[in-house]
Parts: sequence; structure tokens; C-alpha cells
Amino acid sequence: MKTIILCGGKGTRLWPLSREHLPKQFIKIFDNKSLFQKSVERAKLFSDEDEIFIVTNNNYKFMVLNELKEISTNIPEKNILLEPSGKNTLPAIYLGIKAIKKIYGDCNVQVLPSDHVIDANNPYVEAFKTGENLANQGLVTFGITPTTSHIGYGYIGIGKAGKSTKEGNEGSHKLFKVNDFKEKPDLETAKKYVREGYLWNSGMFIFNTKIFTETVRDMTPKIYNAFESSDDLAEIYKKIPEISVDYGIIEKSKNVFVVPLNTPWNDLGSFDAIYEIYDKDENENARFGEYISINASKNLVITKRLTALVGVENLAVIDSWDALLIARRGETQKVKEIFKILKDKGDERAITDKTSYRPWGQYTVLEDGERYKIKHIVVLPKKRLSLQMHYHRSEHWIVVKGMAKIVVDGKEMFLRNGESTFIPSGFTHRLENPGKVLLEIMEVQIGEYLKEDDIERFEDDFGREKKKD
Amino acid sequence: MKTIILCGGKGTRLWPLSREHLPKQFIKIFDNKSLFQKSVERAKLFSDEDEIFIVTNNNYKFMVLNELKEISTNIPEKNILLEPSGKNTLPAIYLGIKAIKKIYGDCNVQVLPSDHVIDANNPYVEAFKTGENLANQGLVTFGITPTTSHIGYGYIGIGKAGKSTKEGNEGSHKLFKVNDFKEKPDLETAKKYVREGYLWNSGMFIFNTKIFTETVRDMTPKIYNAFESSDDLAEIYKKIPEISVDYGIIEKSKNVFVVPLNTPWNDLGSFDAIYEIYDKDENENARFGEYISINASKNLVITKRLTALVGVENLAVIDSWDALLIARRGETQKVKEIFKILKDKGDERAITDKTSYRPWGQYTVLEDGERYKIKHIVVLPKKRLSLQMHYHRSEHWIVVKGMAKIVVDGKEMFLRNGESTFIPSGFTHRLENPGKVLLEIMEVQIGEYLKEDDIERFEDDFGREKKKD
Repeated sequence: MKTIILCGGKGTRLWPLSREHLPKQFIKIFDNKSLFQKSVERAKLFSDEDEIFIVTNNNYKFMVLNELKEISTNIPEKNILLEPSGKNTLPAIYLGIKAIKKIYGDCNVQVLPSDHVIDANNPYVEAFKTGENLANQGLVTFGITPTTSHIGYGYIGIGKAGKSTKEGNEGSHKLFKVNDFKEKPDLETAKKYVREGYLWNSGMFIFNTKIFTETVRDMTPKIYNAFESSDDLAEIYKKIPEISVDYGIIEKSKNVFVVPLNTPWNDLGSFDAIYEIYDKDENENARFGEYISINASKNLVITKRLTALVGVENLAVIDSWDALLIARRGETQKVKEIFKILKDKGDERAITDKTSYRPWGQYTVLEDGERYKIKHIVVLPKKRLSLQMHYHRSEHWIVVKGMAKIVVDGKEMFLRNGESTFIPSGFTHRLENPGKVLLEIMEVQIGEYLKEDDIERFEDDFGREKKKD
Repeated sequence: MKTIILCGGKGTRLWPLSREHLPKQFIKIFDNKSLFQKSVERAKLFSDEDEIFIVTNNNYKFMVLNELKEISTNIPEKNILLEPSGKNTLPAIYLGIKAIKKIYGDCNVQVLPSDHVIDANNPYVEAFKTGENLANQGLVTFGITPTTSHIGYGYIGIGKAGKSTKEGNEGSHKLFKVNDFKEKPDLETAKKYVREGYLWNSGMFIFNTKIFTETVRDMTPKIYNAFESSDDLAEIYKKIPEISVDYGIIEKSKNVFVVPLNTPWNDLGSFDAIYEIYDKDENENARFGEYISINASKNLVITKRLTALVGVENLAVIDSWDALLIARRGETQKVKEIFKILKDKGDERAITDKTSYRPWGQYTVLEDGERYKIKHIVVLPKKRLSLQMHYHRSEHWIVVKGMAKIVVDGKEMFLRNGESTFIPSGFTHRLENPGKVLLEIMEVQIGEYLKEDDIERFEDDFGREKKKD
């Protein structure tokens, strides 16, 4: 089975952990792996690495590549499909299906969101096996057995057995055709759904490419026609509307199977959702990071520094290096309003944290002084920065890990761990990691003007010579 | 009039703003001046700089010197009196009075705490003038007109006019002899005190040295005898008990005047006190630092980074670089328990923040990596660090401000802004600021062992040659 991982989601509801350029699929809150990395590992249960396709966009491409490298997964770069703009899930899936069909012909494809939490446990594996067996008969979706009357999820109605529902048995899973889909309900309705055996709509699917394409052709011809009449993505994406796979085909088709899946699942749609699923201490506090408290209970604390709570309850305390959020639990969906306030006034802290991601690696600003700036730069193995020059600042580079190959004013040299060099303003220079491990350097910039736009590039970020504008 | 500024108080109740080595008199929360600096400026209303004496201890000496320099005050270093240990206010004042008497003979001395907030407005100046005129007749204390029935302050009873109280008129101030002193009362008692015209005990005094010394001799002979029988401070402080000036003489003497002072005053004894006195926005939030909120009210926010509040009220949110406190307002006195927990387990964050103060200036750790450490070092004009050597680390120094004179392996050189040098492990080196402005350098340490104890010093911090142990 092939895989499409949907990895284009923006991060607004988990600010300040997530940012526009660091959406929730890439953040590592709870252990050393991101939700995206975990979705890749789930994909590998059913697909070889070169059968996994990732649909994302140009902003996230290098983060995807870095995160794949971190978990030693070598998905080919050509399998990373870049949408020109976000148009919701149906176009993203169509883009993946079209690419897969072109290589493999018609086949079965599992579609996995990259920003949900689910364990790849035995029930999960069994459900996906069942789904794969059904994929030649119709569209397959997965319905999670509800544990609460959640009002933040969509529900799948499987009808009553033996009535409008075709029921069967395959392996250990009961199989149902879908009866109806319900949007996020109010609490009373949610309770009714849970009583009546509805399932949570998980956003995971298995599609046969042929059935999928034909269904889109019949149900949402605008999408089908746009994708089938051109290979120019920019042109296609200009034509098509934003539309979800649920609204576009799943809710309209009469030929949809739902495989029930009784396992913990969470869409991490807000900090309230995070509090719900994670372990609590004896005072019902869910804690990530260093923490002490006196008489504090029912709090969610995610912190990068020592956090002390005194006499408070029902708070979500989310601490990042450059921003701090304190919200009443139950009102954390309003975090997206905070995000919007920042975004609307052009505040950079809506977009990125102190770390910026680049094709060659990343850098973090440690201190931003009046006439100096300190950066921690990490260069990926075999990557190099563009040949460049600054008019207003000189730079000191000190290697703190790995080995650097540098060119300063045309002269090439190697710097080992502990060695340093000085680049006066006006000198061309290039930094490269020739090695097989990460290169880390401290850069101390000194000058009267230290903004990122004091740079004359002679190559692009891929090392290709660049014409001056 | 001479001045004694009491500057030995420890900071435990305003953690994480204050630390054991950074007590509240030195923190700059609200504007660019510390409470200590403001107390020096009040002192200067009545004293020349060389008439001001500061009683503190060795831990704070260099912070005192730095802060005096910041406000361009040249109190002679000999006027900074160092207590071997903290024994509460009476010994501290005796130490100051004894030093003043030795130089000036008998005279009047104002005693000012360095950790209270009070405006040096007209009523303040008038009250101190009145107090100075009274000082030859008895001990003079200042009583603040209460604005609330505060249960955190001591109260001074001035009795009813014409009864046990001698009343007079001097300038615009009514004068009263003190009737009685009351410790921190419960709320009902506090209300009664306020109704009956009691005043808050401000901790400010004016003493004639002769009357003060005789009163101590009569009321607390242990203190008098210890100080008068020796000039060896270590010996004196070993003998004497901890005792406050209130308990030791003021509450016992029958000859105490109280000058009423109707002006805003606050002892900043907790974050609740800070909330009380500072300006609030339309939602009754008191805010220091960058802040946005949705539906948040009655909070105190003191922050170093952007802080977003959603749907919370009555919180004290105190954010420092390495620790974060969130306490329910009304319970902030429990912060000292947090401090104690940290202190008891030897957590450095009870003692210092990321900045350490030294005789020659200060340094701040910017990043502490596995095999590297980045420090921002500030060297005061005309100061130098000891000649030293490290076995396990090499150091890079980059001058980001000012001019450095350095000696590496016996060779002397000057480094200007933007220049750098490298000190291999095993090389002796010394850093000096020969200039008249601050020297700032970035130090990047690289090595397998980066703790502060990898240091071989050949001189002490005052540049005196040191014998090896």
C-alpha cells in the first residue's frame, strides 16, 4: 500500500508552541519526536520509504527534510509534493493520488494526517489491514470509538445494524457502510450520538486510486477537471476552490465504508485537548518541563524554564523562549484570536520562534544587542550556505561541533571543533558542512547595521550561481 | 544631616525577580532605577555624598558599587560598611552610627531602608525637616497615614490628643510622641487602628548619635557593650543577637516622636503589595512588559517576553529568564515557600539569576551547551580580572563594546570593538578594561569540562598576587 501524508496544516491554535512557520505537526512537545515524524513511522507499517508521499508547501519543505533526516528516513525528495497554496484536504489528496498513479498505476493508498495523535498499536494495524481489504469495494474511512461526548469532533453515523447499514465481518473488525456524517455538534447532540453508536471522524482514509478519481470526477468535477487538464500546479491551484475531502466526496458518496477503531486518538486541536489525553499527577496537573507547586491543581504546564505555581487551578501555562501564554482551561480555543491579533499587526512572533529554518539547516538568535548579534547556526551534513558578503557587519565564526569548510575572500580552509575565523565586512564568504555529522557554529556579528537584508548573495541556497538583479 | 542606608536585606518574597544574591533593593522592575538607587537619591536631599553610609554585606558590595556608578554617585568606598552576617536592623544601624560618630562626632542621622517605595515629594521633605528639628529631643520615627486597613504592616499608636500624648506644632506638621507600637494585626484590629488614627510604621528614622547610643546602652546593653568593647566586626557579630531597631529601642523608649507623613508608601513585601500600588489598565491589570489579553482582569503581569492572557483573573504572573511564577493574588506571600523549596535542594535559581556579579563587573550565561558555553561579560572601567588559566577549555573573546587590554601567555595586546582573540587551554590570560566606558565581550568556551571550578588563579580579584594552596 502507498501512503499520502498530509503535512500542510498551519499552526494557530497551539501558539506560542506552534507558529505559522512551525505548525503543530513539527513541534516536539512530549518526547523527542514530532507528530509528523510519528505519522511517517505509522506510514512505514504499510509502505516502503519510496512509496510514501508527503503533501506540504514550500515553507515547510526544509523542515520536512530535516525531520526525515532526524529519524533516518530516506523518503526521496521527489516524493515531497509542494502545493502552491493551501486549498484544504481534497486538492492535497488529489495531488498525491495523481503522483502515485503516474508511477505505480492504480493501487491502494492510505491517507494520514500528520497532526493527530494515535498509537500504532495492534487494533490500529488490524483496522488498517481490514481497510486495505475493503478499498477495492469503496472509499474507506476510520471511525474512532468515542470516549467522551466531544463537541470539537465530527461524527460518523453507522446507522442501526441491519437497517440502512450493510454489515459484515472481516478479521476481528465489524464493517459498516457509512450512514451519515455530522459536523461538530452541541453537547446534547454529542451525547445522543455517543448513545447511538456514532464514531469520531478521524480524518484517516484508504483509497483505491481508481475509485477515488472516479468519485471526484462524479462528485466534484471542478477538482477533477482542473487536475486532469493540466500539469501546471500554479495554474491548477488558481482554478480550484478550497474544499475538504469530507465535504467533497466522503459525505456525498453512497459507497463509503467505515472501519471502527477503538484506540486513544486526539486531534490536538487546542491546549484543552492536550490536557485531556496526557498523564496527570496526583493533583490532576499535566506537566511537561521543570515544575514546582504549592496548592495547584488541574493545570496544564508546558514549559522551557522552571515554573512555580501557587494556589492556581484550571490554567493552561504554555511557555516558549519568546512568548508566554496563560489561558483558562476551557477557553484555550481563543488562542487563535491571540494569534490573529499578532498576525494582523505584523508581529514576527506569530510567524516564527527564535529559530529560522533554511535549506541548509537552521539558526537561532541567542542575543540581539545594539551593535552585535549572536547566532547559533546548525548546518546539515553535506550542505552549504550561499556565497555571500555583508557591507555593514563583520562576523566571527567559532565551531562548537563538527567540521566546517569555509571560503573567505577566495581562500578555502577547514575549521575543526574549537577553531574560529574572522570575516571582515566586504569579504565574500561561504560556510559548508563537508562532514557526516551536524556542524554547529556560534556566529558573533558586529556592526552598525545587523538586519538580515544586509546581504549580497552570489549563489542561491542550493549553491547555484545567481545573477545580480 | 548624615545618612545611613540599610542595604542588607535578602530577597525571598519577590522570587523569581529577586534572588538571594539579587535582593529586591537592587532589582529594576518599574523603571530604570532600583529601589536602592532611589533611596540614595532621597538621601542626597539632606546629605552630601561623603556623608552617606551604606550598611550591607560582602555579597552585595559590588552590586552597591555598580549601582552607585550607574547613577553617577561617588560615595566613598570606605562609606560602604560590610556586616559579617545579618543581625537585623539594630546592629546595622549601630555599625553606621559608630562609623559616623568617629568621623563627625555627635550629629543627626537619617536612617533609610533601601527596599521601600516612597516618593521624595514635598510632604516627605517637610516631614524630614521637622524630624531633623526634633532629633535633639528624642528618637524620631515617621508614621505613614494609612490608606487601607493593611494587615501586613506594623502600626504606631499616637494616642488621643491631650491624653497620654504630647502634641505640638512645628512647621506644617503636627508632632506626636509615640504612645505604642503594634505588630501586624488581624483585619478587624487593623480597621480599629485606622479608625483610631494609628499610623503605619515606615522603618525610617532620624537619630541624634548621642541619644541613639545612650538609648541602646540603656535598653539593649548587649549591643552597646559588644560594639563599644571592640573594633573587630567579626568578634562583635559573633557576640550579638539578631534584633530589630523597633524591638531593641523604639518600642521600649518613652522618648520617641512620630512625624506623620501623608504620602503613598509601600514596603513591596509581596507581589500583592506591588499590585496594590501600581497603575492599572481599564481591566484592573497592572502590567510591566509586553502584554496582550482577551477577557483578563485584575492580574499583575511582570514579564520579560510577550505574555498573552486568556480568560484569567486575579493572577500574579512573574516571568524572568530562567524561572516563571504564577500565583493567585492574595496568596503571593507563599512565594517564600517556593524559595525555600529551591534553596533546600540546592537549586542555584534560588541564589542567582543568569547574571553573576563580580568585583570587576558581571557576566551572563547566554547558552550552556554540551561542549560549549557562551557568556556575555561586562568589565567596569579601570577594572581587571585575575590572571588565570584553564586546563579543560579554550576561550574565544570577541569585543562587542569598548576596548580590552589582554595578556595571553605573557604577551600583552589591545583589542578594539569587533576584534577577537583565542586562548588555548593551558595558556595564562588576563582581561582588563583600561578605558573609561564599559567593556563588553562575548566569550565562547569550548571544552570537555566547562564548570567554573576549572580555573587556576594567579591573582585574586583585586589583582594581588596569590600563593598557590
